Amino acid sequence: MRVILPAGTTETGLIDGISAAGAAPELMEHTPSADVEILAYGEPTVAPVTPVSPNGCPTPAAVTRAVREVVDFDLSVVDAGLAQPTAAPTVDLGVDPGDDIRESAAVPDAAAIFDRAHTYGGSLPDDELMIGETVPGGTTTALGVLTALGEPAGVSSSLPKNPIERKREVVDAALEASDAAPGSFEGEPVEAIRAVGDPVQATVTGIAAGALEAGIDVTLAGGTQMVAVAALLRHADVDAPLSIATTSFVEAEQGDRLEETCSRLDCELTVTDPGFDARDHVSMNRYCAGEAKEGVAMGGALALVPDDRFDEVLDRFETVCARLGIDDADSAGSDRPEAERGP
Amino acid sequence: MRVILPAGTTETGLIDGISAAGAAPELMEHTPSADVEILAYGEPTVAPVTPVSPNGCPTPAAVTRAVREVVDFDLSVVDAGLAQPTAAPTVDLGVDPGDDIRESAAVPDAAAIFDRAHTYGGSLPDDELMIGETVPGGTTTALGVLTALGEPAGVSSSLPKNPIERKREVVDAALEASDAAPGSFEGEPVEAIRAVGDPVQATVTGIAAGALEAGIDVTLAGGTQMVAVAALLRHADVDAPLSIATTSFVEAEQGDRLEETCSRLDCELTVTDPGFDARDHVSMNRYCAGEAKEGVAMGGALALVPDDRFDEVLDRFETVCARLGIDDADSAGSDRPEAERGP
Repeated sequence: MRVILPAGTTETGLIDGISAAGAAPELMEHTPSADVEILAYGEPTVAPVTPVSPNGCPTPAAVTRAVREVVDFDLSVVDAGLAQPTAAPTVDLGVDPGDDIRESAAVPDAAAIFDRAHTYGGSLPDDELMIGETVPGGTTTALGVLTALGEPAGVSSSLPKNPIERKREVVDAALEASDAAPGSFEGEPVEAIRAVGDPVQATVTGIAAGALEAGIDVTLAGGTQMVAVAALLRHADVDAPLSIATTSFVEAEQGDRLEETCSRLDCELTVTDPGFDARDHVSMNRYCAGEAKEGVAMGGALALVPDDRFDEVLDRFETVCARLGIDDADSAGSDRPEAERGP
Repeated sequence: MRVILPAGTTETGLIDGISAAGAAPELMEHTPSADVEILAYGEPTVAPVTPVSPNGCPTPAAVTRAVREVVDFDLSVVDAGLAQPTAAPTVDLGVDPGDDIRESAAVPDAAAIFDRAHTYGGSLPDDELMIGETVPGGTTTALGVLTALGEPAGVSSSLPKNPIERKREVVDAALEASDAAPGSFEGEPVEAIRAVGDPVQATVTGIAAGALEAGIDVTLAGGTQMVAVAALLRHADVDAPLSIATTSFVEAEQGDRLEETCSRLDCELTVTDPGFDARDHVSMNRYCAGEAKEGVAMGGALALVPDDRFDEVLDRFETVCARLGIDDADSAGSDRPEAERGP
């Protein structure tokens, strides 16, 4: 199995109150660069941050890496608008970071990105692909495109308490800045991304569309951000079978809405519970308390784990956490610079 | 095991008579981009060439990929001066293609490349690394730096008949253009690369130096190009233990000279024979006839194969060749654009 991981940043992720509180913006910009180093090398290498919340909740990249150390999968990281250097190998599709969705255009070259990503996706020789993402502020841009497309789906948050009202205000301002209203971009997915989305959406949607048209099975690895991608694909008249694989943490927050939305989008849904409640480890406790929930292909990676190997994954997760400086006894984090994942 | 694969191009590779005869220069520039796609995806994806010689000898990337499909190893491709796009994920160290060594400077920013590569190599959390290369014309630039350093080592060729006299003429002209003579750059490895080397050497040497200084075991995966890197490292006063892993095809051409040179450079030598003479397959016949010989970390990859799994590697190699359009019955190649590997 190959996991494709588009990673990017936006000015939207820096808006007060939607990004994780307390993390300095200049550190948050490093989060996706650090996430992909964790996937590629097992820990951040040149990125100057370890994405861990003040409560000691590590980035979902740590979970995805733990899975990778148990059930080896191929990984192709795509630079979908990284703002800071990474030592991870990345596919270069010429993607710049996204602007603030409250500007007139959030992703001015959304159409060109979609086209290049489409070519890349269609060129791959794989029979099946999983596509994930890492982009701070990604649920706000997900809400942006869902609203612009006229889709009633909700979005999740990496915080236990979802700042959904603040996200709605930002999306309302974003639509206004684009002279648009809810549903204005029905059937115009690339225009929706251009107006109120982010470059990671353009990349994921383009790769998925290209791959599906080439006959490759595609699983979108993520929660409500991948619901937004599924909606974008359906509005692009892509009617191939499509799956979403996410975590039980997203399902717990979204309830029946997630299943209903997937059903409306003709999208198969797989939910995997990693069984973190079986251990009393600070990182697992944080996930069980509703932090982070999903991201960096975590739900998709967990779906690759055979039933009898979750114990190994939990062991590896503890090892990865130790490598990241999160000891079980040291719940408040380490003395290295920290950045939280954006909601 | 992680294999690091710096990939690049130079104007030197385009010089008449040292590059593979017959291949148009504009196609040869695609060879390293195609090689790393073969490693990453199993076949070229966006690169418009399949590096296969007119005799039907596929790039060593096909062998390295076959090994990877048997004994899975981590792969990090580094962009060390690619001139053409690749869909493979690459580490970006800001390296430009190299100039013609007959210009006054072959790699004007050799020192900056070495420094960035050193930082990258030293940042890796691995216990051991293997470092390979793909750069057309690489044995000519290897002869360039060996001569500049005053090292008497010989260099190999991807052609059955090594155009060594032509390479010597080019190196003589290169030294003259840099106001230098054999041995002028003794103890000055970065200056030697700057004058008569290539950006892949700066990258491999930098990564190796950084990794060795960080306590990581380093094996240089290649033949006489890696002898040049070993010499560059020793002239940089790196005295850590060092290994070279190459193929029996390079040893067959170089004879005792290879072992003697490695011994002089205090470098352990591992030679692996893939056993291609056991099968009557056109691609394996070409290798046995002395074509290609080594490259794209082939010798290092073969050294990772347990004794009882070479049969699997040969099976996979046949599969990879079929994927590349090289059927055993179709020895003259396919109707797709072709490029040969440079010598």
